[in-house]
Amino acid sequence: MSTYELYYWPSIQGRGEFIRLAFEDAGAAYVDVARGPDGIKLMQSMMQSGDSLRPFAPPFVKTKELILAQVANILNFLGLRLGLVSSDEEGRARALQLQLTIADFLSEIHDTHHPVSNAMYYEEQVEAAKKRSEQFVRLRMPKFLSYFEGALSQQASGSYLLGSQCSYVDLSLFQTLAGLEYAFPKAFDSLRGSIPRSLEVAERVKARPGIAAYLGSSRRLPFNQHDLFRHYPELDLNQ
Amino acid sequence: MSTYELYYWPSIQGRGEFIRLAFEDAGAAYVDVARGPDGIKLMQSMMQSGDSLRPFAPPFVKTKELILAQVANILNFLGLRLGLVSSDEEGRARALQLQLTIADFLSEIHDTHHPVSNAMYYEEQVEAAKKRSEQFVRLRMPKFLSYFEGALSQQASGSYLLGSQCSYVDLSLFQTLAGLEYAFPKAFDSLRGSIPRSLEVAERVKARPGIAAYLGSSRRLPFNQHDLFRHYPELDLNQ
Repeated sequence: MSTYELYYWPSIQGRGEFIRLAFEDAGAAYVDVARGPDGIKLMQSMMQSGDSLRPFAPPFVKTKELILAQVANILNFLGLRLGLVSSDEEGRARALQLQLTIADFLSEIHDTHHPVSNAMYYEEQVEAAKKRSEQFVRLRMPKFLSYFEGALSQQASGSYLLGSQCSYVDLSLFQTLAGLEYAFPKAFDSLRGSIPRSLEVAERVKARPGIAAYLGSSRRLPFNQHDLFRHYPELDLNQ
Repeated sequence: MSTYELYYWPSIQGRGEFIRLAFEDAGAAYVDVARGPDGIKLMQSMMQSGDSLRPFAPPFVKTKELILAQVANILNFLGLRLGLVSSDEEGRARALQLQLTIADFLSEIHDTHHPVSNAMYYEEQVEAAKKRSEQFVRLRMPKFLSYFEGALSQQASGSYLLGSQCSYVDLSLFQTLAGLEYAFPKAFDSLRGSIPRSLEVAERVKARPGIAAYLGSSRRLPFNQHDLFRHYPELDLNQ
């Protein structure tokens, strides 16, 4: 069994976490390269290498055959090998559709604290951040959450997003809900009652052996204020 | 040959255009449903239908087997059937990686004029839009453009992004460059000299029979100020 190499910033969960969860759930052999000695340097040198399709940004994964970037692309490719998606073309397309909708959600979540530019500090864009977050918690967060709840409501009770088998999308939904609960605790609390199926899936994901072991280990980094999900009370629901 | 049904807003190019270009280039039989009678109503009713995986937003495509949403997912699925991507798993992953990087670029382009919320008018967020655009034209637009130029520089002269065959990603690169030229003419002009290979690919895409016929037809909508790409002179490079 070959060992996968994951390249991602070593001190945050960020977008790399969606890949870590897939590896951990599947019990795959992987190295989180940038958390090792000289890891960030190694990661950066691979981003500048001229002899293959470079990643635009971390995370990326090196397999025996190629270097893969973009979370949804990595999961679409590895999902098959890790047993985290059905193998037919239609099933894979449904999973990818949901994963890309999660990616859109994450992008909007990120931009609540960085609506102007990633190259500027939060403090330099806090006024725009407040305006964006107000719209986010009032309109976008409920819309995205009810979308996933709706997808679950089309499945039999006790199922996952794509049927009876857990897929990489369920792992990503768990992570998204955990992040929202950390970043927007009041807004999240106010919506809890409307997403029972999603919360139940998150609980089941958390209890899966690979995930439970991972969450209890030092490999799982805590949420923090340099991450994708950030808790700024002034951006949370205020009423 | 079955006819594909495309569902997208009928008065803009937007994200639907990336699908239209693939259909047009391949000469595929498709109906742009929302441009027909009662089309928007039809589109909206399909988004509320409870019996399959709903799209979160247009565009989406109905094939014989399923309803597909998310541009990159649609192109990944249809690319194979339309002959717009190589059929091996590695080649498809490379294409999807590039397409998702274009999707990230488009999302940042959109947010230059809507940094706070899609539910508010441009005029209500023009101050944040100016700040975001300044960062966009100075940092992000050059970074994304040089990424695609770099991917092309790894190919032999006269090739496309993924080799000698034109793929759906090349069509999307053409559309992105056309949109940037419309929206940010000064910034685009200032970067022209640094992206010769990308401009050459765009010219070759434009000259492909299916694309040339499409661009000359009434099916190609003009760029306009309700679209993804918008030309606000105050957001363009100002020096």
